[in-house]
Amino acid sequence: METSSRLRLPFLLLLLPMLLFFLFSSWNPFSGGGGESAGRRSQFPPKSLTSKKFSHSAQTSATPRHPIDPLTVGEIHRVRSILSSYEPFLGQFPAIQSMTIDEPDKSRVLGWQSGDPLPPRKAFVIGLLDNQSHLVTIDLESGRVETHEISSGSGYPMLTMEDVAAAVDAAVSYPGLEVSAAARGLSVANLSCISPSPGWFGPEEEGKRLLKVLCYSKQGTPNFYMRPLEGLVMTVDVDRREVIKFSDTGRGIPIPGGANTDYRFHPGNDPPEMNPINPISMEQPQGPSFTVTDGHLVEWANWEFHLKADQRAGFIVSRVVVRDSETGDRRSVMYKGFPSELFVPYMDVDEAWYFKSYMDAGEFGMGATAMPLVPLNDCPRNAHYMDGVFVSADGRPFIQPNMICLFERYAGDSAWRHTELTVSAGGEKEARAKVTLVARMASSVGNYDYTIDWEFQTDGLIKITVALSGMLMVKATVHDNMNQIENQEETGPMVSENVIGVVHDHFITFHLDMDVDGPNNTFVKVNLVKEENLEGKTPRKSYLKPVRHVAKTEEDARVKLSLYNPSEFHVVNPSRRSRLGNPSGYKVVPEANAASLLDHSDPPQLRSAFTNNQVKKVIWVTPYNRSEQWAGGLLTYQSHGDDTLDVWSHRNREIEDKDVVLWYTLGFHHVPCQEDFPIMPTVAASFQLKPVNFFDRNPILRAHPVFEKDLPVCRPSESASAM
Amino acid sequence: METSSRLRLPFLLLLLPMLLFFLFSSWNPFSGGGGESAGRRSQFPPKSLTSKKFSHSAQTSATPRHPIDPLTVGEIHRVRSILSSYEPFLGQFPAIQSMTIDEPDKSRVLGWQSGDPLPPRKAFVIGLLDNQSHLVTIDLESGRVETHEISSGSGYPMLTMEDVAAAVDAAVSYPGLEVSAAARGLSVANLSCISPSPGWFGPEEEGKRLLKVLCYSKQGTPNFYMRPLEGLVMTVDVDRREVIKFSDTGRGIPIPGGANTDYRFHPGNDPPEMNPINPISMEQPQGPSFTVTDGHLVEWANWEFHLKADQRAGFIVSRVVVRDSETGDRRSVMYKGFPSELFVPYMDVDEAWYFKSYMDAGEFGMGATAMPLVPLNDCPRNAHYMDGVFVSADGRPFIQPNMICLFERYAGDSAWRHTELTVSAGGEKEARAKVTLVARMASSVGNYDYTIDWEFQTDGLIKITVALSGMLMVKATVHDNMNQIENQEETGPMVSENVIGVVHDHFITFHLDMDVDGPNNTFVKVNLVKEENLEGKTPRKSYLKPVRHVAKTEEDARVKLSLYNPSEFHVVNPSRRSRLGNPSGYKVVPEANAASLLDHSDPPQLRSAFTNNQVKKVIWVTPYNRSEQWAGGLLTYQSHGDDTLDVWSHRNREIEDKDVVLWYTLGFHHVPCQEDFPIMPTVAASFQLKPVNFFDRNPILRAHPVFEKDLPVCRPSESASAM
Repeated sequence: METSSRLRLPFLLLLLPMLLFFLFSSWNPFSGGGGESAGRRSQFPPKSLTSKKFSHSAQTSATPRHPIDPLTVGEIHRVRSILSSYEPFLGQFPAIQSMTIDEPDKSRVLGWQSGDPLPPRKAFVIGLLDNQSHLVTIDLESGRVETHEISSGSGYPMLTMEDVAAAVDAAVSYPGLEVSAAARGLSVANLSCISPSPGWFGPEEEGKRLLKVLCYSKQGTPNFYMRPLEGLVMTVDVDRREVIKFSDTGRGIPIPGGANTDYRFHPGNDPPEMNPINPISMEQPQGPSFTVTDGHLVEWANWEFHLKADQRAGFIVSRVVVRDSETGDRRSVMYKGFPSELFVPYMDVDEAWYFKSYMDAGEFGMGATAMPLVPLNDCPRNAHYMDGVFVSADGRPFIQPNMICLFERYAGDSAWRHTELTVSAGGEKEARAKVTLVARMASSVGNYDYTIDWEFQTDGLIKITVALSGMLMVKATVHDNMNQIENQEETGPMVSENVIGVVHDHFITFHLDMDVDGPNNTFVKVNLVKEENLEGKTPRKSYLKPVRHVAKTEEDARVKLSLYNPSEFHVVNPSRRSRLGNPSGYKVVPEANAASLLDHSDPPQLRSAFTNNQVKKVIWVTPYNRSEQWAGGLLTYQSHGDDTLDVWSHRNREIEDKDVVLWYTLGFHHVPCQEDFPIMPTVAASFQLKPVNFFDRNPILRAHPVFEKDLPVCRPSESASAM
Repeated sequence: METSSRLRLPFLLLLLPMLLFFLFSSWNPFSGGGGESAGRRSQFPPKSLTSKKFSHSAQTSATPRHPIDPLTVGEIHRVRSILSSYEPFLGQFPAIQSMTIDEPDKSRVLGWQSGDPLPPRKAFVIGLLDNQSHLVTIDLESGRVETHEISSGSGYPMLTMEDVAAAVDAAVSYPGLEVSAAARGLSVANLSCISPSPGWFGPEEEGKRLLKVLCYSKQGTPNFYMRPLEGLVMTVDVDRREVIKFSDTGRGIPIPGGANTDYRFHPGNDPPEMNPINPISMEQPQGPSFTVTDGHLVEWANWEFHLKADQRAGFIVSRVVVRDSETGDRRSVMYKGFPSELFVPYMDVDEAWYFKSYMDAGEFGMGATAMPLVPLNDCPRNAHYMDGVFVSADGRPFIQPNMICLFERYAGDSAWRHTELTVSAGGEKEARAKVTLVARMASSVGNYDYTIDWEFQTDGLIKITVALSGMLMVKATVHDNMNQIENQEETGPMVSENVIGVVHDHFITFHLDMDVDGPNNTFVKVNLVKEENLEGKTPRKSYLKPVRHVAKTEEDARVKLSLYNPSEFHVVNPSRRSRLGNPSGYKVVPEANAASLLDHSDPPQLRSAFTNNQVKKVIWVTPYNRSEQWAGGLLTYQSHGDDTLDVWSHRNREIEDKDVVLWYTLGFHHVPCQEDFPIMPTVAASFQLKPVNFFDRNPILRAHPVFEKDLPVCRPSESASAM
């Protein structure tokens, strides 16, 4: 265990749970039903929450009710106890890099749904011992280890907080650092050091787990990220707790100043030149319309789904079911969906930068890095909060409080509308307000913040949004004005004096195990193909025709459209037909543009020759395989890419009328600008899963309009009135 | 003037104002200040509005205060009076196809902003006489016609309601229609007929203004669009009021049934299988934070802009100015922005379908077809409403009430966030709620509804969204199940029994006259170029580099990226530099995806080979030209495409450091599905205008968080509590 002096060097990532050890005198266990106990950062549930009618789910003492429920606090203790008496680990207890419910095979989960008994609860543990990854499954009932495998693949498991602390500790104890700090007029105590992952760049890095350590001046600002000690990078052997490489090429580069970098609220520090905005709030005085049963089963309007926090994925949405608007039948849409990997390459090849090509889910964990959401600012007032129950490196549980919020949204938009002059005297003016349900989490993977939303609409659409905020990863430079720089392109965009915002990308790959009306589905590309009007009975020359192409194999489903070949991407159930004989389906819809494909000589196109847009996509479809969950591989850390979606998919398996998984990647290029300094305004992108001939007709045709008489009666708060 | 019996055949488009004549005993003038008067559909301002603290703008009696204010009711009367005594029109008064303020040259508007007197008010009138389009400008002060030109181009002006009524009238009086109706067991009185534009398909259509007329059964449903008399199409010479071609090839095709097509709310017609949603509302009991001065000048937070209804564009946003967060300076962002054209080609070459390739703005008018918004359902409770003052074919004004709504939105999202474990004990948890201002209108261009939003964010971003709803344009078929159809692809998607939803596209082209810190701007493509790490000091092989390319000419600015060449599209002011020397700019941001461009053999890409997305765009940039407002040409109707953005741009003018206009097209492909029947759930797409080195830093860094104490105090309404 580390000493508290080391904690003055907070690391961006997994230090959160570790800090709890120190700040709150280690685990503060409490007894619950079934003898369960867990550490809890008791001050975190914000005060405003305690007065809410709809308080957050008490998950710490829950008994699992659903086969895919996460391990409870009690179960985590039990796993640890089983492992402690497991013979191979008697001498040495492995570092627990991961411990999760070992979800039963889909068939067993579906069988349970149809009345079978709850399948046996099992845990899947990844332990690290002597530089080897032990993959262990444990039957919780029998208390027995069922399988135990030592990985022979290239990667290591997700980091733990101890790994990170060890690396930072080794780095700050390294004599060279003091020299480098002193050369910049600082002592080590003035530094905040972070430990990004090293990627993998060749055989010389084999056989040891590495972390890079970078340091920043924390003088004068909480936003140390803006004050790098440029050119200073240490490579640490995590397990040997040793700096194996020290490089400092940046002593001539000043540390950027800390002025104007503090992003915290300071009363009296007036907001910018702006007329104040009167208080505005999403109000629902009768409370939310959803229920959360047994801590995980969400029911709202026509939707049901299972929602659980996950240390690696952030949260997982499972068994998504929608009630049919005509029949009332509960119909499956998706078995499981979650962000499977998050790839963030930076665009700088310098010694202190080239390795920055993070795979945040597999290396650090989107759940492990999710801190509590900020009520009223991250989520609206009518939000309900849920905790995550996670596992520390010593195998003990800890609580990530208020990690997920769930709320109904009314953003002022309509779900459908039409106005018409008809036979009736006043004309028809019909519109329906759109209310949705949002499940949200936010991971602070070091400097960057990723907010992930799953939004459910009553018309059957699911919209998945990733929003980026937080801090840039910046590079210091000797220049404080662009006019001093000869080759501006090579240097990168200057976002503040002596600060370059390094260009980077974000790619979030979602695992979407679609089960449209059952597991066996088919992926259909509906290609919009330009046809010539060859018969020529009318003067129109061309038109678009949707041509269905059933993907037989994985290769066939790897979508990479060319400029003028737009498509829709359907996952259909060929055995389930609509009233009209259309296969029941959902399509994945990129937030996108589209191209006019008419012939250039076609009169309509001639007259609108200014219309021309296009979009392309890459989508992958694989057959369901319980072991293929993580696009970057189960053991991602320092892996060579030998266990990725790309590799699996090259087997080119058959996928027609099979249980298939859809993979969708949402990407962002980020060329920073001054507005991103010192904290970035949120940027968001989305994609949708949308019913297509799933319902026999518009499922919200008969939705009620909103009437004034039903809306809340509100008055300003006394505090606001007094303003 | 038509007789009321003809009105049983409502037309989808411009019949609205005409109906007013009949339903409300013609114009019901009232006297206002300055002797102004206008017709007004007095029952339209919905009751709920009358009790609102913030009622809608009374524009009917406004005096123009800003050089670009639309013509007032009084000015419209004055123009009509001037034209009535204008010699060339003494014998025959032209049909007024369009009458708008003739906006002064930009320099004069900007001069006025700097203290010059209000430029003279002028009107621009397009009148139609003897098949000729007269373009007339009138000085309102002197009462003189200043210019008068007869168009020699190919197109005609926007239709008027009289044009439409005449065409429908001619069609329903045509004997062949009665025969066709009888052959289907109907009388003409059972029909609703609509009159879509004919497009232009060759020289045989020269010399006369045409409308197509299609008929539907209105029996048993207000949603007649779902009950076409397939194969029946009449071509009408509008000016001669004569059917010149009658075609009915569909007598063997049944008229689809009307069951389940009524979209109106009927109490007791229970909503679909769905748990009820408790009332939810955006509440702002202290009222909105924006002001609307002189009917048009909107001020909110750090924004100021001029907003006016327009018969052709719907609404126009002008003189968009943002206050600088550091200095308080008012800084120009955009001179003028509006939807310039809306191209909607349908994908069927049959005789009754091939011509459907609408250009809704230039043919029908997005404002002319905008009916009143539906409070609480189209716009939230806290919305403020504005009217449109438009002109009828006889040159008289009429009011389009509640045509625009303006509201502040809080959708539960954050404007920025970061959580961090820092040196302070509790960690940092900072987030700021995002509140925006939305200006909205909705056009019902016949069957389709287009909702257009301009959303202003305090961080300087403007998001423009087009949302589609309303009815499909459908084709009847003999089949009532897909399994009866041999060639399903040729037939198109079946959306109900005997109903095919014909595939179509929508392309909305926006005119965006950017004036970033002044008129003279430069368009810069910031290309993200893949570079090899040739020096090879580190093992990284590739990276992205933003390479700035200044567009010198229009040709140079016509953006059409290839698959792996993403770019940003900046409009910068080369003379205005940020504190750091970056040019002040805004970029247009497609809602988009992005592609990883790393080398496939680069280790980071090797490990994340599953990431691959891309987007492309077409953008046009032209030099500012007062006459180039309408992408499809000033006179669009039946035009040959000889006066479009495409044509203008082929002059390849210089655009560097000039007053430039950016054109952006938002496109949709629509392959209908059963969920679109009988009314379509809303589909939306957006693009953004985003500051890039415009502000010296994040302009909302010092925004206040939301505190519980400031939020409204709400209780359920008595009605809701009693439920």
